Amino acid sequence: MSIFGKFAALSARYDRLKQSGADPFSVKFDDILSSVEGVVRGKKTLLFGTNNYLGLTFDEVAMEMSADAIRHHGTGTTGSRIANGSYKVHAELERELADFYRRKHCMVFSTGYQANLGMISTLVGKDDHLFLDADSHASIYDGSRLGHAPVVRFRHNNPDDLAKRLRRLADQPGDKLIVVEGIYSMLGDTAPLKEFVDVKREYGAYLMVDEAHSMGVLGRDGRGLAEREGVEDDVDFVVGTFSKSLASVGGFCVSSLEGFEILRLASRPYMFTASLPPSIMSSTISALKTLRREPERRTKLTANSRRFYNGLRGAGFNVGPECTPIVAVIIDNPDIAVAFWKRLLEEGMYLNLALPPATPNASAFLRSSVSAAHSDEHIDFAIALMTRIGREFGLLPNETNVCPFPVSAERLGATAATARALPTAVGAGAGMA
Amino acid sequence: MSIFGKFAALSARYDRLKQSGADPFSVKFDDILSSVEGVVRGKKTLLFGTNNYLGLTFDEVAMEMSADAIRHHGTGTTGSRIANGSYKVHAELERELADFYRRKHCMVFSTGYQANLGMISTLVGKDDHLFLDADSHASIYDGSRLGHAPVVRFRHNNPDDLAKRLRRLADQPGDKLIVVEGIYSMLGDTAPLKEFVDVKREYGAYLMVDEAHSMGVLGRDGRGLAEREGVEDDVDFVVGTFSKSLASVGGFCVSSLEGFEILRLASRPYMFTASLPPSIMSSTISALKTLRREPERRTKLTANSRRFYNGLRGAGFNVGPECTPIVAVIIDNPDIAVAFWKRLLEEGMYLNLALPPATPNASAFLRSSVSAAHSDEHIDFAIALMTRIGREFGLLPNETNVCPFPVSAERLGATAATARALPTAVGAGAGMA
Repeated sequence: MSIFGKFAALSARYDRLKQSGADPFSVKFDDILSSVEGVVRGKKTLLFGTNNYLGLTFDEVAMEMSADAIRHHGTGTTGSRIANGSYKVHAELERELADFYRRKHCMVFSTGYQANLGMISTLVGKDDHLFLDADSHASIYDGSRLGHAPVVRFRHNNPDDLAKRLRRLADQPGDKLIVVEGIYSMLGDTAPLKEFVDVKREYGAYLMVDEAHSMGVLGRDGRGLAEREGVEDDVDFVVGTFSKSLASVGGFCVSSLEGFEILRLASRPYMFTASLPPSIMSSTISALKTLRREPERRTKLTANSRRFYNGLRGAGFNVGPECTPIVAVIIDNPDIAVAFWKRLLEEGMYLNLALPPATPNASAFLRSSVSAAHSDEHIDFAIALMTRIGREFGLLPNETNVCPFPVSAERLGATAATARALPTAVGAGAGMA
Repeated sequence: MSIFGKFAALSARYDRLKQSGADPFSVKFDDILSSVEGVVRGKKTLLFGTNNYLGLTFDEVAMEMSADAIRHHGTGTTGSRIANGSYKVHAELERELADFYRRKHCMVFSTGYQANLGMISTLVGKDDHLFLDADSHASIYDGSRLGHAPVVRFRHNNPDDLAKRLRRLADQPGDKLIVVEGIYSMLGDTAPLKEFVDVKREYGAYLMVDEAHSMGVLGRDGRGLAEREGVEDDVDFVVGTFSKSLASVGGFCVSSLEGFEILRLASRPYMFTASLPPSIMSSTISALKTLRREPERRTKLTANSRRFYNGLRGAGFNVGPECTPIVAVIIDNPDIAVAFWKRLLEEGMYLNLALPPATPNASAFLRSSVSAAHSDEHIDFAIALMTRIGREFGLLPNETNVCPFPVSAERLGATAATARALPTAVGAGAGMA
């Protein structure tokens, strides 16, 4: 048996998946036509499974600034931030991010994954305690594993459960760090941040919020969930990424706590990696300025999210608990979810498939993420297509006007509008192929 | 005491360093003028502390390909490789790397750090054993910590010590993975790979070689130490990075072992991070082609390394044990090393400073890395400058023609040539400022 023998069960599951004709984890994009359209197997495909929330991947100014940076600074730094890899643009992006978040300090990491690894593994040590939401992103769990602090998991989005666990350790010395996310990437739900802040204060803990999916998305100015909830002063550390609303790659942490800068000489995932090329810094600086200058993108994103979420919910789909740009359709039978995903791609719509055991309750999710660059027609096409396939698979009743659960007036309104738009949208969709 | 209280000792050490007027870990480059010249505090500075081995950061073709990729594919993918982040160029770079290394499989990671994390944490598990060289890079240690395999450290570059430790575990079930590096990043020494291969074969272990600093540098075709030593068939996994000879950012692993591809669904640092922007893929593909097409860069790099290493050694410096592009001057007194580093920067030469406790034997290193883009004049300037400052600090005898230890005829020749070039070089150097 080879060194890969340990993956036999995973391989067998994956082979069964591929035999069904669907390979959701190896989709290759032959071409990308715009922020929301690509080509898969020669077919023009509407992208509903990216994190391109503000639709900035093809922003003209960002693209030109990035290309200029290549010509001026070269293709890469070939060094870490603590050696030869700190150029003017790295410092500039850190200043811009600190200014945006109204914080004193900012560290830029080479990936968002490494931002979580670098902060979580370093801030708390063996004499401290780390409190993680059970549904935390892999990078948060990996950060906790890389570090040395004992880890306490609390029930997802449950401040009472967190309080109970903090209470048990109230007499223990050491620092206590709580980590939650602004928007959770699977179901799109937000953390009850005000309640978490109350718990944090009561027990004298530190609070870190990962705003990866909420930066540029939530809050009047786009700073995320902490801004929307009005609790920014109680959030000690904000981590985030450039590979979602800012349309590049990399990650960061901001804080106003005195002493923060020493992390540059303590955080291994910050120190022992090459810094990002100047072209990445430049496009990110440009995207951050656009995020601040054009709040209308956020307004459009919110409207699009509502249209899509309410449309799917009105059609009878079992969607996530909250309306954010991440819209998950929950399907109890994973085999149907796989077939559904495959049909969607064949019909020109790409989204993400999440399968057990990576998901709670052995169910599967069809996970979409809405972009400000989606048009109403894109969204209506997507709703119509998913509704049609949902009916074929027996997941929905056959009548559009049968609503399987009570919805608010606002939602009914959205649904009615969606229903009217369907024939056109389907036509538009067919024309896409 | 704040959450940063745990870094009090580190902060105190760093404060003392800054009070001495030197801050080697926060150098900002105001501008980069070429592969080997930058501007620090308004002063034109010769770069001797990068990993820009082939001098490709300003390669015209790579820069244009990268800029074109931005215009064509946008500034980022906003998704992971297993979701929407696999474009044609990601697959193309994987094919090119597999072809270059003559291996069946290649996975591209978002950083070199994550390549080591992703491979080491995944290939071996709790029922296996991981054998690490004691002087392994931080990313290898962090990979071992992220994973679940028991870790056995063996003495640096010591196959006998490795054999002893493997012997003790010979009856234990599970896979055994040995990890060594092509060139070690601190002192520039290479692994005794043939002997490690013998040990690996005897005990039926797997062998991974991190060729981060040797790719493009060693071997007739630039595949690294395994090629130079003629043992590629016995190396199961080669990991490497794009942020050194390939002048961008990212990492990879190649292998011909059947079953490798399942790692794409098992390696968390591969799966849970955004893929690199297409512009990075494009410049890396271009740099890899240049690496293959222009072996003269490697020839020049080797000649430059020899000129610099022999020049410093001939001047009486205590250099690393082997001549590679990484040339370390070992200075027993860290305070002198700090002052030396500061003087070099003031005089227009940048290199890296390594201080205890990060170094063996409580000594400090002035670590240079030579580039194919250095001219003979650059190298002679650097030797002359370091010799002058070395004499000022009493590290060297005052007569250039006093050689404190026997050197080979070749080395004496190089030294004599260097000595002749000194006045010109110093003049050229002074002219740089």
